Amino acid sequence: MAQIGFIGLGNMGGPMAANLVKGGHHVRVFDLAEAALEAATAAGCEVAESAAAAAQGAEFVITMLPADKHVQAVYLGDQGLVQQLTAGTLAIDCSTVSAATARQVHEAFAARGIDFIDAPVSGGVGGAQAGTLTFICGGDAAAVERAHVVLEHMGKNIFHAGAAGAGQIAKICNNMLLSVLMVGTSEALQLGIAHGLDAKVLSDIMAKSSGSNWTLDVYNPCPGVMTNAPASRNYEGGFLVDLMSKDLGLAQQAALASGAVTPMGALTHNLYRSWSVLGHGRKDFSSIFNLLEAKQK
Amino acid sequence: MAQIGFIGLGNMGGPMAANLVKGGHHVRVFDLAEAALEAATAAGCEVAESAAAAAQGAEFVITMLPADKHVQAVYLGDQGLVQQLTAGTLAIDCSTVSAATARQVHEAFAARGIDFIDAPVSGGVGGAQAGTLTFICGGDAAAVERAHVVLEHMGKNIFHAGAAGAGQIAKICNNMLLSVLMVGTSEALQLGIAHGLDAKVLSDIMAKSSGSNWTLDVYNPCPGVMTNAPASRNYEGGFLVDLMSKDLGLAQQAALASGAVTPMGALTHNLYRSWSVLGHGRKDFSSIFNLLEAKQK
Amino acid sequence: MAQIGFIGLGNMGGPMAANLVKGGHHVRVFDLAEAALEAATAAGCEVAESAAAAAQGAEFVITMLPADKHVQAVYLGDQGLVQQLTAGTLAIDCSTVSAATARQVHEAFAARGIDFIDAPVSGGVGGAQAGTLTFICGGDAAAVERAHVVLEHMGKNIFHAGAAGAGQIAKICNNMLLSVLMVGTSEALQLGIAHGLDAKVLSDIMAKSSGSNWTLDVYNPCPGVMTNAPASRNYEGGFLVDLMSKDLGLAQQAALASGAVTPMGALTHNLYRSWSVLGHGRKDFSSIFNLLEAKQK
Amino acid sequence: MAQIGFIGLGNMGGPMAANLVKGGHHVRVFDLAEAALEAATAAGCEVAESAAAAAQGAEFVITMLPADKHVQAVYLGDQGLVQQLTAGTLAIDCSTVSAATARQVHEAFAARGIDFIDAPVSGGVGGAQAGTLTFICGGDAAAVERAHVVLEHMGKNIFHAGAAGAGQIAKICNNMLLSVLMVGTSEALQLGIAHGLDAKVLSDIMAKSSGSNWTLDVYNPCPGVMTNAPASRNYEGGFLVDLMSKDLGLAQQAALASGAVTPMGALTHNLYRSWSVLGHGRKDFSSIFNLLEAKQK
Repeated sequence: MAQIGFIGLGNMGGPMAANLVKGGHHVRVFDLAEAALEAATAAGCEVAESAAAAAQGAEFVITMLPADKHVQAVYLGDQGLVQQLTAGTLAIDCSTVSAATARQVHEAFAARGIDFIDAPVSGGVGGAQAGTLTFICGGDAAAVERAHVVLEHMGKNIFHAGAAGAGQIAKICNNMLLSVLMVGTSEALQLGIAHGLDAKVLSDIMAKSSGSNWTLDVYNPCPGVMTNAPASRNYEGGFLVDLMSKDLGLAQQAALASGAVTPMGALTHNLYRSWSVLGHGRKDFSSIFNLLEAKQK
Repeated sequence: MAQIGFIGLGNMGGPMAANLVKGGHHVRVFDLAEAALEAATAAGCEVAESAAAAAQGAEFVITMLPADKHVQAVYLGDQGLVQQLTAGTLAIDCSTVSAATARQVHEAFAARGIDFIDAPVSGGVGGAQAGTLTFICGGDAAAVERAHVVLEHMGKNIFHAGAAGAGQIAKICNNMLLSVLMVGTSEALQLGIAHGLDAKVLSDIMAKSSGSNWTLDVYNPCPGVMTNAPASRNYEGGFLVDLMSKDLGLAQQAALASGAVTPMGALTHNLYRSWSVLGHGRKDFSSIFNLLEAKQK
Repeated sequence: MAQIGFIGLGNMGGPMAANLVKGGHHVRVFDLAEAALEAATAAGCEVAESAAAAAQGAEFVITMLPADKHVQAVYLGDQGLVQQLTAGTLAIDCSTVSAATARQVHEAFAARGIDFIDAPVSGGVGGAQAGTLTFICGGDAAAVERAHVVLEHMGKNIFHAGAAGAGQIAKICNNMLLSVLMVGTSEALQLGIAHGLDAKVLSDIMAKSSGSNWTLDVYNPCPGVMTNAPASRNYEGGFLVDLMSKDLGLAQQAALASGAVTPMGALTHNLYRSWSVLGHGRKDFSSIFNLLEAKQK
Repeated sequence: MAQIGFIGLGNMGGPMAANLVKGGHHVRVFDLAEAALEAATAAGCEVAESAAAAAQGAEFVITMLPADKHVQAVYLGDQGLVQQLTAGTLAIDCSTVSAATARQVHEAFAARGIDFIDAPVSGGVGGAQAGTLTFICGGDAAAVERAHVVLEHMGKNIFHAGAAGAGQIAKICNNMLLSVLMVGTSEALQLGIAHGLDAKVLSDIMAKSSGSNWTLDVYNPCPGVMTNAPASRNYEGGFLVDLMSKDLGLAQQAALASGAVTPMGALTHNLYRSWSVLGHGRKDFSSIFNLLEAKQK
C-alpha cells in the first residue's frame, strides 16, 4: 500500500483515482473543481488544499491534466512540483501533451535527480472507469518498471515506448494512425454504399481481408453495423471529434518539429477541424463518416 | 469432376488452372502466350486453339485477364463468349476490372439467360500458387453458390459481396483501404522514428492499440521489423506499386461514377502514381514508406 | 449573314442564340423545353421541330448541351447530326463534356469529311448575355478560323488550344486551376483572419505580391472585400458549386485517362463534393471560403 | 541622413545594407562571418565588434537573420538589443520568423517603450540587390510610417499588414498561397501536356482566363515556356525548395496556433518536404513541376 498524490480529477482522473483506492492505496487528491473533490471523497480519497499538499510525502504523484499549460504550471510554475518533490518520489504524468513539454519536465526533474515518466493513456472514460486503460510510457526503464505497481490498478496494458517524451510521441503516432483508419474505412464503406453494397457485408469482407483494422473490428463508423459502436447511438459518447482534433494537432506539432512528412495525417487533421467547425465537435470521432457521404448524382 | 474452360494463364491464371487440375477437374485452357500454354500442358491441362474452343461444352468458364479491354474483347467482342456459351454454363470472371465493365458483361449474359459472376481475387501470386486466394463475388446468390465447387480448389475464402459488379466494388474498396492503411502506418512509423523511437517497439504498441491494422500484423513497411515482409528484402516481390496504382485508379473511377467523396483514396492514388513516376513501380507497395521519410532538419 | 442551326437553349444557349440574331445571322433553333423556344422566338429565332430540322441546310450548327450523354445523343444517336449534315457545314459544340466524348464525335465527323470543333466556353450566364464569353477551341486550325465569324458575336476571346478535344482539356485544366486558386486564396485569407488581420488589407497585399491571382483580382471569396463579388451577396448567383464540382469530375476523369498526377485537383474535387453534400451546391463556388473557417480554440 | 545599425549580412542583408549606404545613410554593421564584414566594408559600411556596438546610438536598427532562435538571441538574449536600445530608436526586424517570436519581441520592446516593427520581405536576392524588395510590416502605424525613410532605399513596396506580428502572418499567408499557385499551375500544365497540349499555348489561355495567377505571368514552371524563368535554366537559382518548405512550416505553425483549416497548405507543405527529401532542396521551388509529371500508361 503506497501513499499517492493525484492531481486532476476530471472525467478521466476521477475514476482513475477511485481505482487506486480500490487497489488498496492511500490517495490524496487535488483539483480546482469542488464537485470533483466531493466525488473523490465519496470514493475514499483524502482531499488536499493544493497540488503541493497532495504531493507532500507521496511515493507516487500522478497528474491527469487537460493541456500543456496546465502541466507546465503544475510541475514547473511557481510552487511547481519539481520544487516540492524529493528524490524518493516518482512523478507520473498521464496527460496528453506535446512531446516538447514532456521533455521539458523530464529535464527539470533530471536536473534535481527525481524520477519522472510521461504516461499518456488510451481507452477513454470507459477504460478509466473499468480500470482497463492502456499506458504508453516514456522515460527510464527502471522508473517505468517502478510505476507498474500503481498503473496496474488503472489499466491492463503498460507499454514502454522509449526515452523521455516517447510515451507522448507513441500515443500521438497511434492516434494519428487511428484517424487515418477511421477516415479510410469510412471512405471505403461510403464508396461501397454508393454502389449499392450492404455496409455490413462489405465490412465483414474487408475485416477478413487486407483492409482489416481496429475500426472494422470494434468501432464501425456506419450506423447499424455494430450495435455497440457510437455510430449506432447517433455518435454520442465515445472519443470526441474535438479530442481527436487536439491529438492530431499535437501530431502535426511533432511533425513540424522533426521534419516528418505526413500528408495523410495533415489531411485528417484538417478534416476533423472542419468537421468541428461545422458543429460536430462533441460527437464521437466516427461521425466523420457523414462528412464522406457520397454526393447524389 | 467438372469440365472447365480457363482463359488467361498469366502469373495468376497459370497456377489457378493447375490447382483445378489437382482438384480433379478437367481443364481446357487458352492463352496467347505459347510459354503459358506449355506450362499449362505440363500441369495437366488440355490446350485449345481459341477462347471459344476452350469454353466449348464447359460447365464452368473462368477468365483471368489483365484489364477491361481484354475482358470486353473475350466476352463481348466478335466471337465473344456471350455468343458461344449456352444456358448451362457458369462464367466466372476473376480479373480485376471496373465495375462498369463487370455490369456490362453481366447484362449481356442476363439478356441471354446465362449465369455470370464477377469474382476478383486477393492474395497475389503466392495465394494463386498455394490455392489460398480470396474470391470476392458479385452476382446472383445461386450462381455464386454454384461456383464454390470450383473456386474452393483455388482459394480458401469465398465472399458474396452483392449483385452484379459488387465483387469488383468490394475488392477496390478493400484495396483503397489497404493503401490508406499502408500510407498511414508508414507516416506514423516515420514520425516515431524521427523522434528517436524504435520502429519495432512502436509497431508493437500500435498493433495492440487502436492503430491496429493488417499492415502492422503481417506487412510492416519498415525494413527489419518483420523478417518475412517485403520491406526486409528491399521491397522486392509482393504487391507491386503499379498494381496498387491500377486498383486505386479503378477506385477513383468508381468514385467519380457514383459521386463518392474519397479525399484519402484520391491522395494515396496520387502518392502511388508519383512513386511510380519516380521509378519505383516494380517495387512492393510498402516501399511508399520511403517517400514519407522525415526531412532532416 | 449565315444560316445557323442552334440546339440547346438553356441559361447559356438562349442568350447565345439571341446574340447571333443581333449579329445579323439567321438562326433556326431547337430545344425540348417549350418556354425556351418561346423566348427564342421573341428574340428573333426561327423554331424547328427537331435538332435535325434546325440543322437542315445550315452553314454552322452550334450545340450547347448539359452533359456527355446529350452530346452523344444529338450527334451520334439515331438520327444523329453526323448522319444529317453535309460536308459544307461546320459543327461547333460549346458544351462542356469529357475530352473522350469530344474526340469520339470528332472521329465520327472526320470519317464523313465534315468539320467539327469542340469549343467550350467560360464566362457564365453573364458572359453569355453580354456576348463576352471566352471560347476555347479544339480541332483543325482552319475550322477554328472559320468559326470566328459566328463566335465573335457571342464572345470576345477565341482561343485555339490544339487538336480534337484540346478545347475541352484546356477548359478543365483552367477550371481545375481556378478551384485551386479559390481554395488556396480562401485558406490564406482565413489564416490571416484567424490571426487578426483585416481581409481587405491582406487581400491587397497578396494581390500586389507573388500570391496574385484571378480570385484576388475580381472574385474575392471573403464577404465585404469586393462589393460586386458573389461573396458580398451571400454567395448567390455566380458559378455554382455543383457546376465546379462537375468540371472537377471531368478533370479527374482526364487525369485517370492519362495517368496525370493531380493531388491538389483531387483534393479540391473532394472538398467541392463535400461542400455540395453539405447542402451548398446551389451557391457560388467561392462559398467554399466558409468550409475553411478557422476552428475557434 | 540617418545613423543605422544593421545586423545580419547574408545573401539578403549584405546588399540591403549596401543600398542604405548608397541612399546616403551611415551604416554600422555586424555579422559573425568575416567575409560578410569585408564585403560590407567595401560597400562603405562601418564594422562594429558586436550587435550591441552596431546598434549603439543608432536611430534605426535593422536585423536580417536566418531563423527564430537568432532573432530571439539578438533581441532578447543576454546582452540583447532590448536591453541596449533607448526610446529614440526604431528596431526593424526583416527576418522571416514565426508570428509568435515576432509578438514576443514586440512585447519586450513595448514594455520598455521602444518602437519595434516586424518587416519581412519578399523579392529574394535579386530584389535585395536591385533595391526592389517588398516589405510587409506589422506594428504601430506611426512606427511603420517612420520606417519608410530607410525601407524605401531597399524596396519599392511597403505594406502595413496590421498590428504586432501581422507582417509575418501576411508574408506566410502570401507564400502559402504562392505554393498553392505553383503546385496548382504545375498540375494543370502536366494534365494538359499528358493530353498532348502545348504548354505554352495552354499557359497563354489560362493566363488570360480565370486561371490567371502570378506563376503564369512571370514564373512558369514548365521548361522552355519562359526564357527567364528558373524552369528554363534547370531550376537553378530562384527561391529554393528548402526556403519555401521553411515558410510553409511557419504557415502550418500559425495554422496550428490559431485553429485555421488549411488542407491545401498542409498538402503543399508535405509535397515540398518530400521533394526536398528526394534531393531537390537546393533547386528553385518551381521544380515541383517534375514531381507532378504524368505517369506513363
